[in-house]
Amino acid sequence: MTPLHDPPRFPRGFRCASRHVGLKASGLDLSLFASDVPATAAALFTRNHFPGAPIILGRERIRAGRLQAVVVNAKVSNVATGEEGVEHARRMGRAAALELGVAPELVLVSSTGVIGRRLPIEKIEAGLVGMADELGEDPRLGAEGIMTTDRVPKAFSMEVGGATLTVVGKGAGMIAPNLATMLVYFFTDAEVPAPELDALLREAARDSFQLLSVDTDTSTSDTVAILANGHAGRVDAADFLHGLRELSVRMAEAIGRDGEGATKLLRAQVTGAATAEEARLVARALVESPLIKTMAFGADPNVGRILMAVGKCVDCRIVPERVGARLQGLEVVRGGAAFPFDEPQLRSLLAGDPVDIEVELGVGSAEARAFGCDLTEGYIRENASYASS
Amino acid sequence: MTPLHDPPRFPRGFRCASRHVGLKASGLDLSLFASDVPATAAALFTRNHFPGAPIILGRERIRAGRLQAVVVNAKVSNVATGEEGVEHARRMGRAAALELGVAPELVLVSSTGVIGRRLPIEKIEAGLVGMADELGEDPRLGAEGIMTTDRVPKAFSMEVGGATLTVVGKGAGMIAPNLATMLVYFFTDAEVPAPELDALLREAARDSFQLLSVDTDTSTSDTVAILANGHAGRVDAADFLHGLRELSVRMAEAIGRDGEGATKLLRAQVTGAATAEEARLVARALVESPLIKTMAFGADPNVGRILMAVGKCVDCRIVPERVGARLQGLEVVRGGAAFPFDEPQLRSLLAGDPVDIEVELGVGSAEARAFGCDLTEGYIRENASYASS
Repeated sequence: MTPLHDPPRFPRGFRCASRHVGLKASGLDLSLFASDVPATAAALFTRNHFPGAPIILGRERIRAGRLQAVVVNAKVSNVATGEEGVEHARRMGRAAALELGVAPELVLVSSTGVIGRRLPIEKIEAGLVGMADELGEDPRLGAEGIMTTDRVPKAFSMEVGGATLTVVGKGAGMIAPNLATMLVYFFTDAEVPAPELDALLREAARDSFQLLSVDTDTSTSDTVAILANGHAGRVDAADFLHGLRELSVRMAEAIGRDGEGATKLLRAQVTGAATAEEARLVARALVESPLIKTMAFGADPNVGRILMAVGKCVDCRIVPERVGARLQGLEVVRGGAAFPFDEPQLRSLLAGDPVDIEVELGVGSAEARAFGCDLTEGYIRENASYASS
Repeated sequence: MTPLHDPPRFPRGFRCASRHVGLKASGLDLSLFASDVPATAAALFTRNHFPGAPIILGRERIRAGRLQAVVVNAKVSNVATGEEGVEHARRMGRAAALELGVAPELVLVSSTGVIGRRLPIEKIEAGLVGMADELGEDPRLGAEGIMTTDRVPKAFSMEVGGATLTVVGKGAGMIAPNLATMLVYFFTDAEVPAPELDALLREAARDSFQLLSVDTDTSTSDTVAILANGHAGRVDAADFLHGLRELSVRMAEAIGRDGEGATKLLRAQVTGAATAEEARLVARALVESPLIKTMAFGADPNVGRILMAVGKCVDCRIVPERVGARLQGLEVVRGGAAFPFDEPQLRSLLAGDPVDIEVELGVGSAEARAFGCDLTEGYIRENASYASS
């Protein structure tokens, strides 16, 4: 693994600011990220049929492949708000553009929080005034301003070739592939043309965010974007993709571990699948199974649930006698049947974080790794009263 | 709705008995159901790739379309137990056949409980001795002997034409379509040839058990079977199907309401879909969404989650502007956007049981109804330590 910067930092030319503008009762609720020059850009958005207003606007803006700033609010997602919602998203982008002195079409807008509530646009417009003077060098501050049910701000950075790559994200619940209830922004000073950036982003997301599931619910606000301002010049494309992949996995793991109510990261590695798609399906079935998630939480070695979850992928090519599995490195299934293991040892290993499940299907050579978290009473408590909290 | 018998009763010629044979620490754990003459029969089994040993045996036995008895144990599912498991299932069937004086191939065997543990076959064989003398008229006793995490025994009966139709079932967790962690047995004195019985059972299951989900996890033991001993002679096929459908829905609802940790039944009715398959997909997405399930538990009207769940069916034809939704009969979505509702009123309606969600897609005329339950801390508690409990 490439070493991460500690603390994380921005690539040359990128800065951010965060404020409390009155959307949450207390705490930061608005973040602004900006480059000193226009950057090439690419983005992926949710496939949910009810995209939020910022997604509708974002799809329009990303077509040109150029962005200079990102403005994000927490607490209200501006989803299912009709024409007025789209107008509010435009106003939010315009206010950020005015404050930064950049063209409105270079601003990507995101909102995250409760669905179906009117965006308090007046508070956001008023709150943005003067924020340009507060732009600073710490990406963790920007991460803090976009948190909803997240417990920790999520920002990481590393060197890729001669350039820096930084990622800032949020996400804790309503997270399932295509994409997840998450907002993730990459910033780099590498020089990468927009079409290439788009291809690299899709490639990196495929093995990270697209295989991340906290609760199988696909949000209406998901956004993964990357801005490249070119200050560090061209970098080797393979190096860059390698770094982008590493940082994507790092962020996917951070979001999984911070899943609503979660106490640990859950990872499922599937090997020997007939196709990559089948490897992904089985890996997702494992991290999404409520019975496996509760087993991870309870550290209770009910290994039959692994076979159950593999077996429920009824459309995948699975030959029971060839299936083997390991839990925290310990062999628990051989030839499709339960394999005797040292129960106290496994129980103690399961108490750790992360919980790793490895399944070998023995029918081909494709593999995939999916990310999730355990399922606890905390998820119930947070979500039984989220709208009113 | 056709009135149910109260208390439920068996059709002519069917009886059952239940005993504690030492599989559970206490409580009934073995049930025997028998007809006085051979019956025509049909059955559906799990599609999980790791079927339990009783499923392997059951598939073989149901081919002839004839059964006279069903023997079921709780606590150990005899799944992932290899060749020895299949031999144990055969021995269990033979012991029941010997006790009843019927041919072994006329006995259907089921086991439910923890996966990957050896079946204590000696206890079952010893426990069956003398059970024939205890056969009685109350189907609730048979239902009680097959409970695992179920809180209530599930048995219903009604008249269909001039015959009686009785259903006995269990199921609470690891329940998802194809089929569900459930065992359901129908008994009737109607005379129905086996191939016709098979077609009717599939038809009735399609709109009930195949649309029932407690936790999206598909069990390795699921069985739905029907035995028809003919004592009441031929009945009208349409009447019979109507009754079979009603009783299937009744049992699916009972299993949903008794879902692990659940406090209420959750139902989703989808209308105006492009195809029946899409209607089923959307209805399932609604009852399977953890965020909708926790909303039902918390009685917290976060209606945006309904749009989220409909919208995450990315492969269905959904036109946002045409989508409308009602929650407990109250309109909450119109034209794809949140529709103002009386919040205290909805909150109070949501505190009830069942919670009903109706979604009109407005793109076709197909419809479906799915069944599930709320998600509570109780589900976590039960499943974080099931193997060791």
